[in-house]
Amino acid sequence: MPRIKCIISYDGTGFSGYQVQPGKRTVQSELVKALERLNKTSIRVSASGRTDAGVHARGQVIHFDTMLEIEPARWQIALNSLLPDDIAVRSVEIVRPDFHARFDAAGKEYRYFLLQSKNRDPFQRNYAYQFQYELDLDSMREAARLLIGTHDFTSFCSAKTEVEDRVRTLQEIDFYEENGLLVFRFVGEGFLYNMVRILVGTLLEVGTGKRAAGSMPQLIEARDRTQTGKTAPGHGLYLWKVFYGEEHHQFEN
Amino acid sequence: MPRIKCIISYDGTGFSGYQVQPGKRTVQSELVKALERLNKTSIRVSASGRTDAGVHARGQVIHFDTMLEIEPARWQIALNSLLPDDIAVRSVEIVRPDFHARFDAAGKEYRYFLLQSKNRDPFQRNYAYQFQYELDLDSMREAARLLIGTHDFTSFCSAKTEVEDRVRTLQEIDFYEENGLLVFRFVGEGFLYNMVRILVGTLLEVGTGKRAAGSMPQLIEARDRTQTGKTAPGHGLYLWKVFYGEEHHQFEN
Repeated sequence: MPRIKCIISYDGTGFSGYQVQPGKRTVQSELVKALERLNKTSIRVSASGRTDAGVHARGQVIHFDTMLEIEPARWQIALNSLLPDDIAVRSVEIVRPDFHARFDAAGKEYRYFLLQSKNRDPFQRNYAYQFQYELDLDSMREAARLLIGTHDFTSFCSAKTEVEDRVRTLQEIDFYEENGLLVFRFVGEGFLYNMVRILVGTLLEVGTGKRAAGSMPQLIEARDRTQTGKTAPGHGLYLWKVFYGEEHHQFEN
Repeated sequence: MPRIKCIISYDGTGFSGYQVQPGKRTVQSELVKALERLNKTSIRVSASGRTDAGVHARGQVIHFDTMLEIEPARWQIALNSLLPDDIAVRSVEIVRPDFHARFDAAGKEYRYFLLQSKNRDPFQRNYAYQFQYELDLDSMREAARLLIGTHDFTSFCSAKTEVEDRVRTLQEIDFYEENGLLVFRFVGEGFLYNMVRILVGTLLEVGTGKRAAGSMPQLIEARDRTQTGKTAPGHGLYLWKVFYGEEHHQFEN
């Protein structure tokens, strides 16, 4: 049975997050609805991970199995015609039957968009976090440098996090400006629940001088969520890209 | 009684256009609601002109009279705190008592955003018109050159237009690319109902080769709406700026 991998993007504004929840409009339930209409049978969809309410995706990855033999370009057209217009399939690929969107993910990139302005922008209200204070980017870069690496990120994940092993590797944190927005870029092998938003919230406190850049090692050491910054709002966050080892993109037999 | 001029922007997605309509959410009714809460009396708001459902504004201009003596910066803060987040007041100015947002407007700039792509972009669905065909920009520039000037634009306004005098002066039409979007820019002394959207629809037919650039003078001559192109969708359109003669920005006594 062919396994299909799709890269999808969605505007998270109208969704109660990625995962199916009874009575709520979610990305997964819209995907399942479209796939079941096409396949005329029940379909199970797996994603690289969940996203919360309001969080966007440019490059979420999902996979599913199907009996239909359709070529990738036609899959894309068919799915896009059935999906609501706040979800789009960007690419479709037939992968080997043991490819797994979540378990095979070797890393992820998230971006966080900040509108640095005292004035609201109606066009950014769902797409960037409006932040009116000045930021010291040099201090934020220094803090970022201290956060990069392999650490126990207990202080930087939701207290509700259920996984026991909170050691993760952050490979990159950087900042750039684009169209009047400040963009944070995070690349890592894996992220804990709310980790990017707590990193952003903490870095903003460094940027406004509330917290010293040099305090990052102690924060990590503390393994205590109450010592780090606020969880930045979901609507500034984008799941940008999911990385897979090259081997997953090729048939092996 | 002080007269106040405001420059406002709004995301048109959630509105049934600018003008008050019973039972509908409109920009004007939200403005009136906020102003009446502040002023504790009924307030009449005048705009430079209406915008249709889904049409956006970066620089709509409104005026109103008030008994309140508040300085402009505080007006802005107070109004923004009462308005919904898809409308923002960008600036506030106290103007002379006979300033009129509509009658004193000396010109307007509209922009129209086109997403030239075969693939949908969920983030642009309400903010740019997705158009999947190739465009010959040279032909479109040639057609634009023939449309610029003072003409009877009957062919380029809605058949429902009630004004008798359809002579208008188009000062500028140009195109530029920005962030992967093609942007049309229209500057004129005045615009008829649906005029920009019909100009866009007609220019797109020139761009795809359906219509010759050289046919513009005949289209103008015909004074017949049925001969021009489709009305392009409202969600690509932005009222960008309203121009007033310098004198309106200054107190004269």
